[in-house]
Amino acid sequence: MTISELAKRARAVSPALAAMSGAEKNAALAAIADALAAAKEELLAANARDLAAAGELTDAVKKRLVFDEKKLAGCIEGLHALEGLEEPVGRVLQRTELDRGLVLDKVTCPIGVIGIIFEARPDALVQIASLCLKSGNVVLLKGGREAAHTNAALYEVIARAGAGAGLPEGWITLLHSREDVGEMLACEREIDLIIPRGSNAFVRYIMEHTRIPVMGHADGVCHIYVDRAADFDMALRVIVDAKTQYAAACNAVECVLVDRTVAAEFLPLLAGRLEQAGVTWHSDETAMAAIGGLPIADFAAEYLAFELSVAVVDGLDAAIAHINAHGSHHTDAILTADPAAAERFMNLVDSADVFWNCSTRFADGFRFGFGAEVGIATSKIHARGPVGLEGLLIYKYKLRGNGQIVEDYAAGRAHFTHKPL
Amino acid sequence: MTISELAKRARAVSPALAAMSGAEKNAALAAIADALAAAKEELLAANARDLAAAGELTDAVKKRLVFDEKKLAGCIEGLHALEGLEEPVGRVLQRTELDRGLVLDKVTCPIGVIGIIFEARPDALVQIASLCLKSGNVVLLKGGREAAHTNAALYEVIARAGAGAGLPEGWITLLHSREDVGEMLACEREIDLIIPRGSNAFVRYIMEHTRIPVMGHADGVCHIYVDRAADFDMALRVIVDAKTQYAAACNAVECVLVDRTVAAEFLPLLAGRLEQAGVTWHSDETAMAAIGGLPIADFAAEYLAFELSVAVVDGLDAAIAHINAHGSHHTDAILTADPAAAERFMNLVDSADVFWNCSTRFADGFRFGFGAEVGIATSKIHARGPVGLEGLLIYKYKLRGNGQIVEDYAAGRAHFTHKPL
Repeated sequence: MTISELAKRARAVSPALAAMSGAEKNAALAAIADALAAAKEELLAANARDLAAAGELTDAVKKRLVFDEKKLAGCIEGLHALEGLEEPVGRVLQRTELDRGLVLDKVTCPIGVIGIIFEARPDALVQIASLCLKSGNVVLLKGGREAAHTNAALYEVIARAGAGAGLPEGWITLLHSREDVGEMLACEREIDLIIPRGSNAFVRYIMEHTRIPVMGHADGVCHIYVDRAADFDMALRVIVDAKTQYAAACNAVECVLVDRTVAAEFLPLLAGRLEQAGVTWHSDETAMAAIGGLPIADFAAEYLAFELSVAVVDGLDAAIAHINAHGSHHTDAILTADPAAAERFMNLVDSADVFWNCSTRFADGFRFGFGAEVGIATSKIHARGPVGLEGLLIYKYKLRGNGQIVEDYAAGRAHFTHKPL
Repeated sequence: MTISELAKRARAVSPALAAMSGAEKNAALAAIADALAAAKEELLAANARDLAAAGELTDAVKKRLVFDEKKLAGCIEGLHALEGLEEPVGRVLQRTELDRGLVLDKVTCPIGVIGIIFEARPDALVQIASLCLKSGNVVLLKGGREAAHTNAALYEVIARAGAGAGLPEGWITLLHSREDVGEMLACEREIDLIIPRGSNAFVRYIMEHTRIPVMGHADGVCHIYVDRAADFDMALRVIVDAKTQYAAACNAVECVLVDRTVAAEFLPLLAGRLEQAGVTWHSDETAMAAIGGLPIADFAAEYLAFELSVAVVDGLDAAIAHINAHGSHHTDAILTADPAAAERFMNLVDSADVFWNCSTRFADGFRFGFGAEVGIATSKIHARGPVGLEGLLIYKYKLRGNGQIVEDYAAGRAHFTHKPL
């Protein structure tokens, strides 16, 4: 089948998957977990083929490519954890009596057909497939080329186990090439949402090459603003954590802004701690005069390394303006003992996550307590910030009557009650 | 200023508008209402100029173009009604303790900058401007060419009154030409959402010419399925209402599907009632043999007139498949006395509104009790079906701590509590 035909099949089976009960979906999750456990040898063998072909890749990529017994156990544990989550589909969000015998329900339902493109880690395939299944969404997915054998083996086991548990054929589809992805991005009538997980350049490419809505983020240019009322000790600890705890993460800090009134005192302390932590810095003119450093080439730079920008601003409102102009609307923090300054910062900074006196690294679905994370979104509609399972849901309105017609209300023979139930 | 500069100004003032209090926004709504009342003479004069130039337009368009004392009073009433609505921004949707002293709030906030393009009715300008203001969104809007003088006069009064009440300059911008709209659709870095209100062709054109998310609907190809267990009297009443109560509406029925087992009995009754109501029908092969009619050129036809399609299907699942294949995911109804059939229909039909035993014409924000209606959306993300004020909102996460760093949790020195508050 062509990609367009596969997408049409996905669209066609989507209502049936959407209407499955929680018990049916949980039975399928359990069957998939059992099938993965039973297929251990063939999965590890497939991964060995990928690793054998990975000679030229960096150690970091090779590490993410590994799918061993520990990763498999983690996947199986994740499947069972999803079984235990509350059924997300069919929840009544709002019930309104429009009139006696005419009741409106706003009910959660799956979005429909999701296209997911991810890089490297093969265990992401299991996670994605199971999140989509739990939420009743049909999924088309494409993994990293380096993990092709592992992905294909995982897909075979999952698709077969799902079908055996009664899921409609086509509930999951694996794509194989970059050309496949290009064709998928054109299936705007069949696919409701694209979720890309990977590098900035990759996500940006996806966003620019489809009319299908995209949920995700390209940049993570996160800021920390050190206010005049900041506790310096706390500021130094938080900045070092936000930069070094995992420098390649999208929620790592990339730019520290310092209030001019405390710059002369704070900047030398900051330089000392950065040096100690092995972090190099880029300075604007004022910071350069105080603590040296490399010049700042671009205020929107995302270093993703032990490297950050340091700039001096004329107080709170200048910091807010700087962040809104140069940031990526991801995660930005203020460090201050002044509650009014903190509230103003959190209200005026136009970012998904606005933090007060803590590390930007907390911006994460698991740390937020969502249980499962679909990704982090920086768009302004649907879902924003760390996105849990509810990001794969929308709602529909069910209206149940006994023969009501609108003309009776237009003519004044009947009247709406609009009573919340 | 160019459109791109106006859009940049809109983006720049958006955080300030977003952070305004409910009291400040309500004061501005009241000031606008007063200013409109005071400007009655100049508004009616501007409308007279539009009407004088409207010689060649159809009566229907001319009627929508009228802005008289009654329309003005309606606008002013609408502004005061919005004042009375609960403040939509800053509502805490969810509060979670991540750890002691580390509390996460999910808080509603405006989307940011909205571009709205509407046809004909000048009172829509007032409604749109006030909905955006109430929800803290900056708005760029473009009205119909026929109403250019009225729109310009309304805009001047509203912009001036808003500025006088303390709203930041640029909170509202009126565009003037089709070229302006084209340039606005390219401002994807500045504008977060486009809402087009007008004909199908118009909405489709907008959707196909921008990368900015679009909220709205092109087609409204609504179905009514007459099940084998339908009450025929109810079915006839509901079908006539759904077609004739306002035939040009997007929620009017365009296609009636009849279960084959009751077709021989029901179709002649239907034909009689349609004839009586002045509705012509298009028939598929089976219906044609029973009740004649014109042929069906396209199952996805949206007649928007006293005209509909009639087709015979092999039971419930065939009806569901037909609707999912040919419908527009807007509003579809089943008429039946069988609750199991109704639930299956409502679960499997992939539409924003799925109705049981009532007219499709109920699909409307005011009838649903939303107070204000932004539009009706058929997309699958963000908002679906009739959209109230909450369709102009998204949320942000505010995390308040006292110096927490992620490394303490990674190293096991601190532990998340994840307690809902």
